[in-house]
Amino acid sequence: MDSNILQNRIRAIRRGLNKAKISCLIVTKAANVTYTTGFLGDDSWTIITPRGVYLLTDSRYTEQAQQECPACRIIERRGPIAEAAAKLIVRLQSVRTVYVEKSTSVEIFEALKKHLKRHIKTVGKLIENVRTVKGNDEVAAIRTAGRIAAKALKAAIKYAVAGISENELAGRLDFEIRRLGATNGFETIVAFGSNASRPHHQPGKKKLKNKDAVLIDFGAKYKSYCCDITRCFTVGRPDKFYQKVYKAVEEAQSAAIKKIKAGVSKLTVDAAARDVIAGYDLPVYGHGTGHGLGLEIHEEPFVTDKSKGKLKAGQVITIEPGVYIPGKLGVRIEDDVLVTESGCEILSPGDYKDIERCIIRSK
Amino acid sequence: MDSNILQNRIRAIRRGLNKAKISCLIVTKAANVTYTTGFLGDDSWTIITPRGVYLLTDSRYTEQAQQECPACRIIERRGPIAEAAAKLIVRLQSVRTVYVEKSTSVEIFEALKKHLKRHIKTVGKLIENVRTVKGNDEVAAIRTAGRIAAKALKAAIKYAVAGISENELAGRLDFEIRRLGATNGFETIVAFGSNASRPHHQPGKKKLKNKDAVLIDFGAKYKSYCCDITRCFTVGRPDKFYQKVYKAVEEAQSAAIKKIKAGVSKLTVDAAARDVIAGYDLPVYGHGTGHGLGLEIHEEPFVTDKSKGKLKAGQVITIEPGVYIPGKLGVRIEDDVLVTESGCEILSPGDYKDIERCIIRSK
Repeated sequence: MDSNILQNRIRAIRRGLNKAKISCLIVTKAANVTYTTGFLGDDSWTIITPRGVYLLTDSRYTEQAQQECPACRIIERRGPIAEAAAKLIVRLQSVRTVYVEKSTSVEIFEALKKHLKRHIKTVGKLIENVRTVKGNDEVAAIRTAGRIAAKALKAAIKYAVAGISENELAGRLDFEIRRLGATNGFETIVAFGSNASRPHHQPGKKKLKNKDAVLIDFGAKYKSYCCDITRCFTVGRPDKFYQKVYKAVEEAQSAAIKKIKAGVSKLTVDAAARDVIAGYDLPVYGHGTGHGLGLEIHEEPFVTDKSKGKLKAGQVITIEPGVYIPGKLGVRIEDDVLVTESGCEILSPGDYKDIERCIIRSK
Repeated sequence: MDSNILQNRIRAIRRGLNKAKISCLIVTKAANVTYTTGFLGDDSWTIITPRGVYLLTDSRYTEQAQQECPACRIIERRGPIAEAAAKLIVRLQSVRTVYVEKSTSVEIFEALKKHLKRHIKTVGKLIENVRTVKGNDEVAAIRTAGRIAAKALKAAIKYAVAGISENELAGRLDFEIRRLGATNGFETIVAFGSNASRPHHQPGKKKLKNKDAVLIDFGAKYKSYCCDITRCFTVGRPDKFYQKVYKAVEEAQSAAIKKIKAGVSKLTVDAAARDVIAGYDLPVYGHGTGHGLGLEIHEEPFVTDKSKGKLKAGQVITIEPGVYIPGKLGVRIEDDVLVTESGCEILSPGDYKDIERCIIRSK
């Protein structure tokens, strides 16, 4: 990880800490630990004080941390992490009140309280707020993840012929992602036929039949950054109703994407997609229209019918309207979009669209 | 999910609740939600009262919940989950003090407090304590996961020849797991050569060379239950030092497994493995000797040099001593073991051992 990038991030976080009058922050959320140190392992915390940035890890990760973290001090702990964090902080005499992230469990909070013997308070989303606007390196990683996902899907789609199971098709896709040097951003969803009406279906033994519709929701993770894409197609020519639904979802997505620009309210973007679906007299999806993505697959900002506030330049969000009719079908189209001052840039490459439009004919 | 099994689990949990005088428990940890309802999705909670068991989910999961959860009432929420939970509980007039799991975040705890307008307290590991002793169905699932892992490794190992990258070998293994109807229990570790000295190495571009050692740590997840296995071998004949290390680790594992029996202290099991490694004058590993596994890949009981208490019949634990020499090598051998009244049963099939002993010759 580039030392300058890490130092810039810490500077931005310190501005937030100073504003909130926080002199010591314990960072427990894995994505925030990665963001502040470059560390990619588990079970480790960052501690930020006015003087230093410390990564608290254990012997399983010490060697890895030495390679990944050029801009912080690495402390190898023995024993429970809350106790080790407390010991380290007690050594730093200048600290009076200690803050820990609000996403921390009550259990950890209580353990810290016990061992610290100092004031301890929680603070919410301080690092998440910095993370929501992506740096160039982060956008580049998401773009590369998108390209890898596109290539992987193109390679895997050849296997989407009658007789393959959801499980095996998901496995083919995951393998192609691996072969291209990335990993899964999350568990791949492959749903055949009416299984697609469940937005978070888990792939099973169901075999693909001629005329079946396919929904694939997946992402590649490259340099810790995810992309998140959903594509739908049919084996053979889709029936009229599927075509109508597909057109509605495509138009809904397109309407939402057209609204995206720095300063536009999230509600406006959300409503643009929902209005199109409603206009087709189809059931409007119960989930959000989109979510931020980056080090986490779901992160701020969330674009829903209850969202507050406006989009900012540098945010990366999904736009993923859908139509779900239990027992019948499910169609969702999802792309990843960078918000810019003048509009937006779609980070999931155009190749995808070709795949969508290409109706797979069974062999 | 079998309704009788779920009812038995709820009965066992209610005994714990009665003992602790808890009339209403909010279950927020995903594995505990699965355990109490059979539900396999995300972002959902179980609420247990003296009269009922409720699954609080959202529209993405309603259809799935109807299929997976035969023994609870499914409540579809709109809006934030803490608010919806509070609303539901307020409707159940008999409840005075509400408990939530201690693994819940401070943020959720505060949101519940705000919306509930009732006493709210936390309780730790109540369901985890029930889960630590596995039912026959759970042991069967872990055993099947172990068999699938064995088959998958056997199929993937053919690709472990000079020139393949860590990433691609990991991908081959994951694909075989998928093809056999399971998913990854966690992100597969494949480490070549000195990369194996990092216990949680992430597979990368490094290519396998003749005489390289290979470490693979992976698991299949079947019906939501994980297995967790580590195997080491070399491409071509290993050098004398590797042979010595391998023998030490094998003996250490064997010594620990021999100690396992209901009623034996976890410290005894941990020490048995460490003593062997120390006896060989090799560096003793910094991680635990083993951990429970089931719905979570790391769960109670933990077998470390700080463990308290004794093993119980029905617990399933890993035994995974290792030797790590940075820049040089890493060897770990890991199996999954069911604790019984009279000793133990190894749930990871013997086929594995054949693979270990089979020194892969590059083509």
